[in-house]
Amino acid sequence: MEAMTEDGKGMCYGLQIHDWAKSLFPITRSLTGAGVRETLAFLSDKVQGGLEVDEVPSGSPAFDWTVPDEWTIRDAWVEDEHGNRVIDFQAHNLHIVGYSEPVDQWMDLEELQKHLYSLPEQPDAIPYVTSYYERRWGFCLTHNQREQLKPGRYRAVVDADLEPGVLNYGELVIPGDSEQEVLLSTYVCHPSMANNELSGPVVTTAIAQWLQSLPRRCYTYRIIFIPETIGSLVYLSRNVDHLKQRVVAGFNVTCIGDERAYSYLPSRAGDTVSDQAAKHVLHHIDPDCYRYTWLDRGSDERHYCAPGVDLPIATIMRSKYGEYPEYHTSLDDLNLVTPAGLEGGYWALRRALEVVENNVVPTVTVLGEPQLGKRGLYPNISTRGSTSATRVLMNLLTHCDGEHTLLDIADLIGQPMWELLPLVKQLEEHGLVSVRQAV
Amino acid sequence: MEAMTEDGKGMCYGLQIHDWAKSLFPITRSLTGAGVRETLAFLSDKVQGGLEVDEVPSGSPAFDWTVPDEWTIRDAWVEDEHGNRVIDFQAHNLHIVGYSEPVDQWMDLEELQKHLYSLPEQPDAIPYVTSYYERRWGFCLTHNQREQLKPGRYRAVVDADLEPGVLNYGELVIPGDSEQEVLLSTYVCHPSMANNELSGPVVTTAIAQWLQSLPRRCYTYRIIFIPETIGSLVYLSRNVDHLKQRVVAGFNVTCIGDERAYSYLPSRAGDTVSDQAAKHVLHHIDPDCYRYTWLDRGSDERHYCAPGVDLPIATIMRSKYGEYPEYHTSLDDLNLVTPAGLEGGYWALRRALEVVENNVVPTVTVLGEPQLGKRGLYPNISTRGSTSATRVLMNLLTHCDGEHTLLDIADLIGQPMWELLPLVKQLEEHGLVSVRQAV
Amino acid sequence: MEAMTEDGKGMCYGLQIHDWAKSLFPITRSLTGAGVRETLAFLSDKVQGGLEVDEVPSGSPAFDWTVPDEWTIRDAWVEDEHGNRVIDFQAHNLHIVGYSEPVDQWMDLEELQKHLYSLPEQPDAIPYVTSYYERRWGFCLTHNQREQLKPGRYRAVVDADLEPGVLNYGELVIPGDSEQEVLLSTYVCHPSMANNELSGPVVTTAIAQWLQSLPRRCYTYRIIFIPETIGSLVYLSRNVDHLKQRVVAGFNVTCIGDERAYSYLPSRAGDTVSDQAAKHVLHHIDPDCYRYTWLDRGSDERHYCAPGVDLPIATIMRSKYGEYPEYHTSLDDLNLVTPAGLEGGYWALRRALEVVENNVVPTVTVLGEPQLGKRGLYPNISTRGSTSATRVLMNLLTHCDGEHTLLDIADLIGQPMWELLPLVKQLEEHGLVSVRQAV
Repeated sequence: MEAMTEDGKGMCYGLQIHDWAKSLFPITRSLTGAGVRETLAFLSDKVQGGLEVDEVPSGSPAFDWTVPDEWTIRDAWVEDEHGNRVIDFQAHNLHIVGYSEPVDQWMDLEELQKHLYSLPEQPDAIPYVTSYYERRWGFCLTHNQREQLKPGRYRAVVDADLEPGVLNYGELVIPGDSEQEVLLSTYVCHPSMANNELSGPVVTTAIAQWLQSLPRRCYTYRIIFIPETIGSLVYLSRNVDHLKQRVVAGFNVTCIGDERAYSYLPSRAGDTVSDQAAKHVLHHIDPDCYRYTWLDRGSDERHYCAPGVDLPIATIMRSKYGEYPEYHTSLDDLNLVTPAGLEGGYWALRRALEVVENNVVPTVTVLGEPQLGKRGLYPNISTRGSTSATRVLMNLLTHCDGEHTLLDIADLIGQPMWELLPLVKQLEEHGLVSVRQAV
Repeated sequence: MEAMTEDGKGMCYGLQIHDWAKSLFPITRSLTGAGVRETLAFLSDKVQGGLEVDEVPSGSPAFDWTVPDEWTIRDAWVEDEHGNRVIDFQAHNLHIVGYSEPVDQWMDLEELQKHLYSLPEQPDAIPYVTSYYERRWGFCLTHNQREQLKPGRYRAVVDADLEPGVLNYGELVIPGDSEQEVLLSTYVCHPSMANNELSGPVVTTAIAQWLQSLPRRCYTYRIIFIPETIGSLVYLSRNVDHLKQRVVAGFNVTCIGDERAYSYLPSRAGDTVSDQAAKHVLHHIDPDCYRYTWLDRGSDERHYCAPGVDLPIATIMRSKYGEYPEYHTSLDDLNLVTPAGLEGGYWALRRALEVVENNVVPTVTVLGEPQLGKRGLYPNISTRGSTSATRVLMNLLTHCDGEHTLLDIADLIGQPMWELLPLVKQLEEHGLVSVRQAV
Repeated sequence: MEAMTEDGKGMCYGLQIHDWAKSLFPITRSLTGAGVRETLAFLSDKVQGGLEVDEVPSGSPAFDWTVPDEWTIRDAWVEDEHGNRVIDFQAHNLHIVGYSEPVDQWMDLEELQKHLYSLPEQPDAIPYVTSYYERRWGFCLTHNQREQLKPGRYRAVVDADLEPGVLNYGELVIPGDSEQEVLLSTYVCHPSMANNELSGPVVTTAIAQWLQSLPRRCYTYRIIFIPETIGSLVYLSRNVDHLKQRVVAGFNVTCIGDERAYSYLPSRAGDTVSDQAAKHVLHHIDPDCYRYTWLDRGSDERHYCAPGVDLPIATIMRSKYGEYPEYHTSLDDLNLVTPAGLEGGYWALRRALEVVENNVVPTVTVLGEPQLGKRGLYPNISTRGSTSATRVLMNLLTHCDGEHTLLDIADLIGQPMWELLPLVKQLEEHGLVSVRQAV
């Protein structure tokens, strides 16, 4: 992708982002608990002013939902009669079913099997299983591992607490000229998996750094790091009026770190500026990108775009959740998510935000086609054929009618919007166009 | 078609409807006369309260048209010099050209030929010919029969009256909660032919029985049995203001009894709820159904949808008039029209009416996606892939925004609307959606 | 094309138009100067009342542009040391770069080469080069000719004036019942080239004759013969308010004389009545015609349709400028442009104007389908199948709802609008429709 070398520095973001992911990968995250706090603390260090971390008590209502008890997992294993740990949380945190209740019990293999989860079609993968809203305990393991279990007695131990506590989330507001906001949401509730989910928070953090580095921003950027589903519901239930008044665009950031594909999932409305920006960017980055529909939704957009909430939130991904074989297994690791994959995801999201941020409405200031020649904007010798730079400039100008946004124009003339930005600036300097903000 | 066994009773309607058609088949119907009255009387017996049969005198104006004289046909034949009846109305009522004036005259074969109609390409078929608005007499016969006529003298006898009388039609109003109406129109003016037209009135009568069997109806249903063209013009001219104020949907019922195809013909506007319902139903019953355009019209929709009338009347058919080889010949009989064909036509029309009747606008009552799990609406274990019942429920819920009708939603999520009805009821019972009528 | 023999006279316009082109071909036209005036004088003789020729002084502003000095070219050549004219304006007026400044100078071949223009890929073609807004001088020649130049001394002579003078244009207003106008614009600034541009003014002149021959016109027709770009800018800058108030449709007439293709280039808005008419006509004349987009624009529509001007000007062409190999070379001559090519172009443009002129909104005067039979408009015997004349009449009638224009209806029923005109007249005579003007 050209964007990777935009400022001549090669892969300037991917390696850094991948390093962050490596640091965060081993942490045992869940909806609640120490892992979420540790993750938020790590990311907080990367942004100016840090994240504001909030906590919400278990039992708090969130629209139709309730904040669950806090889960603290210390250790978990299954040992055989000889004391060998045949399944061991210390080896991989996916071995424990998320939100397992405490247990310490001897049983036959037959009884144990009722608490085991494996994938016969992916015999080398440990599946990711949770049971947030129904109390149970269980262990996940590779199918190969499971088939080696011999009849006999086993002791299952889950050393955990599942008791009233808090749910945490982090928030960062980067002010802009306008009170209107762009919302970025990403989640921090999955244990050791890389595309879904670590790619989300680490790319979002790099985006936050970029936004903070800008001399000014048109919009205010609100970035939240939350546990999926219950976290977005909690956040929405506390801020829905504010968000409905302020948010003009936004993205849910998830599955944005592998190299295999680019994907777009629309908002429920399907035609918000976020959708237009995402489609525009992905079309120019990867014309073969996947375009999903609202029927394929599956993350927090379900709540952000729910009837009555109706925020303009679209999703730009690399390989979409549920659509790649490693999804929700131990195979979704930092070999799958690469520096190049993250770099590409970063740029796709950044381009989309640049599109939103710079989506002005330009108006040409003269009647008839301007005389570019007298301003040195028209070449002395023009070559027949191929869309030259001059042609792009003239195609841009001809649509500066005060009705089309720059993004509309970019789509009309088939150019990446970010390549039109310097032309608009040039035309402004020559007094040939004036601009106003789109929203 | 699955619909046939919907209530586990197999073909519960088709055999009954076919029996009615058998009873009515031999009657000599025309625009006017005893055959129409006999047909209306038979159908009147099948519905609660019977049909209200009205009569309109010959000479009455109907917009640009005038009710013609009443035609009474008693007998008609052509006999040769030996007194053999070589063409005989008693053998098949299609042998006489509809509205033939009385005659009793000897002539040469050459002269007779001017009054004969046959189909060289379909030598075994007696064609259906009428001459309502120009006085003539004539006989129809198979081309094989015609070719056996030998030179000689023939006597042509038409024992008929063609004199001022009345035009009859039948009407049934089945009241509903609303004064808004759904109009069904079908015609009773063709002699012994089955798909066009007997399938129309018999399927419509079965639909009337079903509507009367419902504990309540949202809309009022107005069902008329009329002679084609002049009948709909008469009815319209007497009721056009009422119909324009009240009718929100409706169908012209014709050619709905063979097994070979499903067909849709739009209203002139093309996007009424009748059109949307017809397209939705046929898409789910038969994705390969024929979709005609307004240019292919040819029945009473010409008047119902005429400029200034503009009723929302669409047409659901099996094989469309003019498009099947037996059309308007003696081959359009009760072998072509079958119990299974009628059953399918019945269900297509009933489904379309169910769609109109139940086209509520559902609104979800909570913000964010509802928690289905706590209501037992979400499975404990969900399988990857395939659109599960839960997924359908969630797809339904996500569009319950108070703006989309249930039919809109069904199209958005690719489900038959009638399969969503029990889900809406379930969601209402759980207090998760409220509904209002669409129109 | 059938249209050629419409009135049974065979190619009645093409030969005449081609003759005019032959007369005008040798004249050395440019943005300004005697050639423009000579051309306007010739065309002025062909229309009743003649053209009103206006003049605008050099230095006059025209929106963002300024009228250049007037160029008078008397002679120009390059001679070798023996006095042989190796390049000679007298042999072909394309040999001189348009707007060359005066020069008389000896130089080496190497220095001369900097002032020569040829086309290596088209070695037999003299290219067309101009330098209106930057002072230079130069010669154009075939590449074969150029390769025969031997090292040595050459004298370049341009006997020309380039001094303040005037820019000329011609105008013809043909009044109609309405003050609303249809604008035709064509240009007269190219030296000896036939498709681009002589086809434009000669076809436009034939169209003017036709318009003047009509007993009455609904619209007023404004026809201007201008130098391209600066001429349309001058005209617009002097009349923009008038034009924006009055012009309801119009065409830029260019490249309308060869036989190889029909082409359509839209207005910037893309959906004006001019666009609708052009697409309709070309669809029926040549279903394989080229449909360009606004991105392919390149003539005066750039100004007529510029933001803030927004006139409804579309373009109907044969082979489009820039898209045929002879474009802007000496090969674009009167072998390429033929009587048949001009005839076809004439008819395409005339049909489009007929469509605009006759684009009434018909309203049927009766409810329900009219009874055509009693008016002799319905055949006694109708044949199954094929769209008969009666079917066309009924398809027309069914859309006479007072909302669709005749052009809309023609598109809805797939008929050329000009074939519906006599039917509308017939229906008007029978009192079945009333009409009003569309705009």
